[in-house]
Amino acid sequence: MEHRAAIVGAGHTRFGVLDEGPRRLVGSAIDLAVASVDRGFDRAGLDAAYLATIGFGGWQIGNSSAMLAEEAGAPGVPAVRVENACASGGFALHQAVRAVASGSAELALVVGVEKMTDVSNARRRFWLGVSGDTAWERQAGLTFAGVYGMIASRYLDLYRAPREALAEVAVKNHANGALNPNAHFRKAVTREQSAAAPRVADPLGVLDCCPVSDGAAALIVTSPAAARRFTDTPVWIDGIGAGSDRLAVQEREEPSRFDASSRAAEAALRDAGWERKGISFLELHDCFTIAELLALEDLGFAGRGTAAALTLSGATRRDGALPVNPDGGLKAKGHPIGATGVSQAHEVFLQLRGAAGPRQIPGATRALTHNVGGAGATAAVTLFSGG
Amino acid sequence: MEHRAAIVGAGHTRFGVLDEGPRRLVGSAIDLAVASVDRGFDRAGLDAAYLATIGFGGWQIGNSSAMLAEEAGAPGVPAVRVENACASGGFALHQAVRAVASGSAELALVVGVEKMTDVSNARRRFWLGVSGDTAWERQAGLTFAGVYGMIASRYLDLYRAPREALAEVAVKNHANGALNPNAHFRKAVTREQSAAAPRVADPLGVLDCCPVSDGAAALIVTSPAAARRFTDTPVWIDGIGAGSDRLAVQEREEPSRFDASSRAAEAALRDAGWERKGISFLELHDCFTIAELLALEDLGFAGRGTAAALTLSGATRRDGALPVNPDGGLKAKGHPIGATGVSQAHEVFLQLRGAAGPRQIPGATRALTHNVGGAGATAAVTLFSGG
Repeated sequence: MEHRAAIVGAGHTRFGVLDEGPRRLVGSAIDLAVASVDRGFDRAGLDAAYLATIGFGGWQIGNSSAMLAEEAGAPGVPAVRVENACASGGFALHQAVRAVASGSAELALVVGVEKMTDVSNARRRFWLGVSGDTAWERQAGLTFAGVYGMIASRYLDLYRAPREALAEVAVKNHANGALNPNAHFRKAVTREQSAAAPRVADPLGVLDCCPVSDGAAALIVTSPAAARRFTDTPVWIDGIGAGSDRLAVQEREEPSRFDASSRAAEAALRDAGWERKGISFLELHDCFTIAELLALEDLGFAGRGTAAALTLSGATRRDGALPVNPDGGLKAKGHPIGATGVSQAHEVFLQLRGAAGPRQIPGATRALTHNVGGAGATAAVTLFSGG
Repeated sequence: MEHRAAIVGAGHTRFGVLDEGPRRLVGSAIDLAVASVDRGFDRAGLDAAYLATIGFGGWQIGNSSAMLAEEAGAPGVPAVRVENACASGGFALHQAVRAVASGSAELALVVGVEKMTDVSNARRRFWLGVSGDTAWERQAGLTFAGVYGMIASRYLDLYRAPREALAEVAVKNHANGALNPNAHFRKAVTREQSAAAPRVADPLGVLDCCPVSDGAAALIVTSPAAARRFTDTPVWIDGIGAGSDRLAVQEREEPSRFDASSRAAEAALRDAGWERKGISFLELHDCFTIAELLALEDLGFAGRGTAAALTLSGATRRDGALPVNPDGGLKAKGHPIGATGVSQAHEVFLQLRGAAGPRQIPGATRALTHNVGGAGATAAVTLFSGG
């Protein structure tokens, strides 16, 4: 099997309500990533850099990738901003993989960042509907939680699924997040607390929603051939795949199905020549609890309508047969938009090197990350091996 | 020499003050690009799509690449938005080149678009300083024309260069634009008119500034191996290179020099294994007339301080030794921000196939495009062969 690229370093700030601005967050994530490289790293050797951000905080209007080059301490490095809403990080990683796989770069930096708190109310209003369709959804007053609330209603009704499955996603991911020192929320919750939480967009309560977080994550990506110059234990990227769907949910055949995710997974599995059954754990895009159930089905790890039962069985817990979101997921770890897809790969980097501490999944050798833009309009899936 | 990628189709809307919105502009450019492919094109065969836009018009906040997939008639295709301010188009093209060169895609679509007129005054104010540094320049009230005005003052003073050289850039590019049916301005101007034009930011007058335009351009990019399925006369991409610089001009050693452009050119020439002397013509990023002089020097086609004399000699006219901007450049053709880098490649596609009509450069076989983000903070250079 041919590797597409390697990750030889990864860094991650805390996610949460932070004092630091976006420049500082980017710089911190890069410094941590650089410090994690075992040997031989030189910032002057970088020949590609990718910044994933929607620019929520408005800190640099346009051309913010030049700031990334500055903060990387390599102000001449070619830098590109990638924006696919909440999937910006996953897509930025894919561009870096293609840069090194094409031979036109050897050492690349990928950074995702978002500053979402401590911004003006006008800006919050402007952005908080960002990820859906502007013409049909946002301008009609439909919030992002509202879209997912309708999707959840549809799902629970279509499959006669119990609402407890949503609560179980929150319980599981909070339990995992409690073991992640970078997580926004580090406290366990119960199904009862989830059920009793204030409703945001029925049937979703506040414990079904990811928080609004600040944070950044960084990856150092090399060509497969160059990886061992930097470490004896690279984490390999073996497949990438992506897909799109109609921007507006109303224009799709079935709202409780994200075809973009299915397309992304099929393409990634084909790219890697993998089957699902060898994959040790999943990092799924659980911006709302319902999204984790959808993802299990869209990616083919559960049959249609069966993700609720699978989740309630405990199979997706850290000690289950198919652990999902050992880092706490977007739900508990937080969701600084541009950072999320990069953060998922950071967790894989730790897990596949046996360095995830108390949340380590024993014997993990293969992982999948899944990053969604908007309510399923774009999706990126990446396959990793190591260990 | 190894080709990196091929262009087998290209489309271009008119640039100017247009009635169409961004979706319609994108759709039109794609339709024209598809119609230009000689044979065998099927939208369902697309396996990568790149959208270059800053989203000036605010028509879709976040995830606008999903709209590209819809307008391409391939709603499942992996789609990515690239934003590097005015260099978005050039950088989007580079990502497509890497996608096909890495073997992870075979047939890619690149579209650049901007809707800049017929938007609210608030939005115009928000965006018109977009391309510079937000913290040091924009928030201090420095406009984009202001930055380039100071750069022009510095250049003219440093090299005792005559202001007539700026006027000659406008005269030449307007003469070329008059022959381009897609150009925003299709009228010739004289040096006298340029000198007498109202000042915008001294020494730059209104005829030294590119207009605010709507428009879109599209390219169909394939792997070198796949190109001849679609045409007998592909235009090859033989080298890509990019570079960055400090975001704020004040933090650079010398404001009349864009090191990002130099880095991009050196990288592209190295990638292609080319020397400058075989290049038939240049598409340079002349957002202001001074920028064309800077680019000639930054890219190594004129010594420091000599671009003014070279330009006044007529060498950069369409019938000169080194034609620059045969399509009229940003100056006369217009500058719908995300579309510009894609539009430059469209002109190369026509010229290297001998299809540029009355503005054809006889015997053109190699071309260079140069696309700048902000006041020189990012730059992308691409090298093409054909003919």
